[in-house]
Amino acid sequence: MNEPIDIADKLSQFSDHWSPKVIARLNDYEIKAVKLKGEFVWHTHEDTDELFLVIDGELTIQLRDGDVTLKPGQLYVVPRGVEHCPVADGEVHALLIEPTGVVNTGDAGGELTASYDDSLG
Amino acid sequence: MNEPIDIADKLSQFSDHWSPKVIARLNDYEIKAVKLKGEFVWHTHEDTDELFLVIDGELTIQLRDGDVTLKPGQLYVVPRGVEHCPVADGEVHALLIEPTGVVNTGDAGGELTASYDDSLG
Repeated sequence: MNEPIDIADKLSQFSDHWSPKVIARLNDYEIKAVKLKGEFVWHTHEDTDELFLVIDGELTIQLRDGDVTLKPGQLYVVPRGVEHCPVADGEVHALLIEPTGVVNTGDAGGELTASYDDSLG
Repeated sequence: MNEPIDIADKLSQFSDHWSPKVIARLNDYEIKAVKLKGEFVWHTHEDTDELFLVIDGELTIQLRDGDVTLKPGQLYVVPRGVEHCPVADGEVHALLIEPTGVVNTGDAGGELTASYDDSLG
């Protein structure tokens, strides 16, 4: 008990892309580690903001009114209701923070929809 | 608009200790940058968990049932109602994530109680 949560250690325990893993909980929010590569799908979370914090690599969050590019140590909060599509030329390691139960593909669904995974949490 | 938030840049803009600065908002939560040095005060947040993520330096979170020491890239969530007291021998740079309006000294109050500061947010 009372052990720190090491982000790099959590990231070392999986290799699949676009499949966030819960690593910690904060009230009714979850902190998820995720690896991203390639282009995701345009989608919206109607009911919540979504925080991206890049740990390694370079992530572009495409938005309809202009892209945001995040390097390690940079974060961005996609506001609720704002359509977005992450894209990573190389592999990106990142944290996501959002309320419990948010589905990665939001309103879009489809084959990139990840199962809930708290095996590392 | 649509600019990334650079954690190191935000941390470079202040030097005071134990005085968290809001750098981003996520729904009704705030992401705060903070510099810590020395020993804080034992206190409890009765209504919320509190997330510490260390960016630089080494932070010990003293807990009544055992300390947690965090290095860069490590995080810990102090559960609501759990008395804790951060201590940093050297300067520590960290992020705090918690609901809007949480006061740094919780139930303890006293001279280390910080004013709300969203001048960097």
